[in-house]
Amino acid sequence: MQKPLKIILGIDPGTVIMGYSIIAIDGAKINMLEMDVLKMGSKRDPYQRLELIHSRVNELIKKFRPHSFAIEAPFFGKNVQSMLKLGRAQGVAIAAAIQSGLTVTEYSPRKIKQSITGNGNADKQQVWKMLCHITSIIEEPRYLDASDALAVAICHHFQTSSILSSGTKKVKDWSEFIKSNPGRIAGK
Amino acid sequence: MQKPLKIILGIDPGTVIMGYSIIAIDGAKINMLEMDVLKMGSKRDPYQRLELIHSRVNELIKKFRPHSFAIEAPFFGKNVQSMLKLGRAQGVAIAAAIQSGLTVTEYSPRKIKQSITGNGNADKQQVWKMLCHITSIIEEPRYLDASDALAVAICHHFQTSSILSSGTKKVKDWSEFIKSNPGRIAGK
Repeated sequence: MQKPLKIILGIDPGTVIMGYSIIAIDGAKINMLEMDVLKMGSKRDPYQRLELIHSRVNELIKKFRPHSFAIEAPFFGKNVQSMLKLGRAQGVAIAAAIQSGLTVTEYSPRKIKQSITGNGNADKQQVWKMLCHITSIIEEPRYLDASDALAVAICHHFQTSSILSSGTKKVKDWSEFIKSNPGRIAGK
Repeated sequence: MQKPLKIILGIDPGTVIMGYSIIAIDGAKINMLEMDVLKMGSKRDPYQRLELIHSRVNELIKKFRPHSFAIEAPFFGKNVQSMLKLGRAQGVAIAAAIQSGLTVTEYSPRKIKQSITGNGNADKQQVWKMLCHITSIIEEPRYLDASDALAVAICHHFQTSSILSSGTKKVKDWSEFIKSNPGRIAGK
């Protein structure tokens, strides 16, 4: 029986720029449907910026009807002031997800790198190389925030797909893993 | 000509408890319509807590149809982690206001105390005494967060009512001020 399509919305919210990406999981294939950024620099008013985030996330949910919502969430910042602002940006994005009944899952940048490349300290270029490999995209986005959002969406898929979910189901053997996760094989 | 009723929703969001209050400005009279708290301690999941905040603020907006939304927003916290959480709580409350087309105004605790009592360093008891005086309420709420929300709503009224708005319109004389702001007269 064919597995139903699974749609994931990944968000990397910031106070000046927000990255977002939509992926569709079709069996073992990961299709990138959207990867872009929302720039808020034109609005000086912080509430207008929050409004932009909220309405864009709402639009994405209406258009793609994702099944889950994953967010990149750094736990440490430079100062309390910037963390409050970041929290607000996350909050309005999360509110849009919550009111659509989506489950929200957050991942630290380290967890995302670990999940994508196998190395929690991987640099941006290594993550990007692996993303290209997994989704067969070629063109690098103009803003790294967009690919960060793609990374969190794929990380969520890896973390929740039954075969990889930590501890709940163990991979029977490597051939099964490789069959289910063709994009995870380095150098393929 | 009688001035139309002005409804203000005041919110003091936190990560464990959220205070909220609704006031109706009827000419020179300030009526407190609601003053309560939402307790989130029963939910361990942080997203369920955020969902509670978002839906309660939505309910209040639907029920009372406020004209404006005022929020108490401390700018400094103990650590970045708690500020991120506070930012999220503020963010989901702000999202509810934004999607209803309400303008959002935030006030620092100091500004609120200054506006209510004339002293930015006033203690909780002094603020409460003045709130009782202004709104003719007698019974102290079980949670101070509720009266903090009332304070921010009244602060917003004082800051936006034409006669008091800073610099834009000057009070002609004290008799006019007293007439328009009976609750602002200490000891009356």
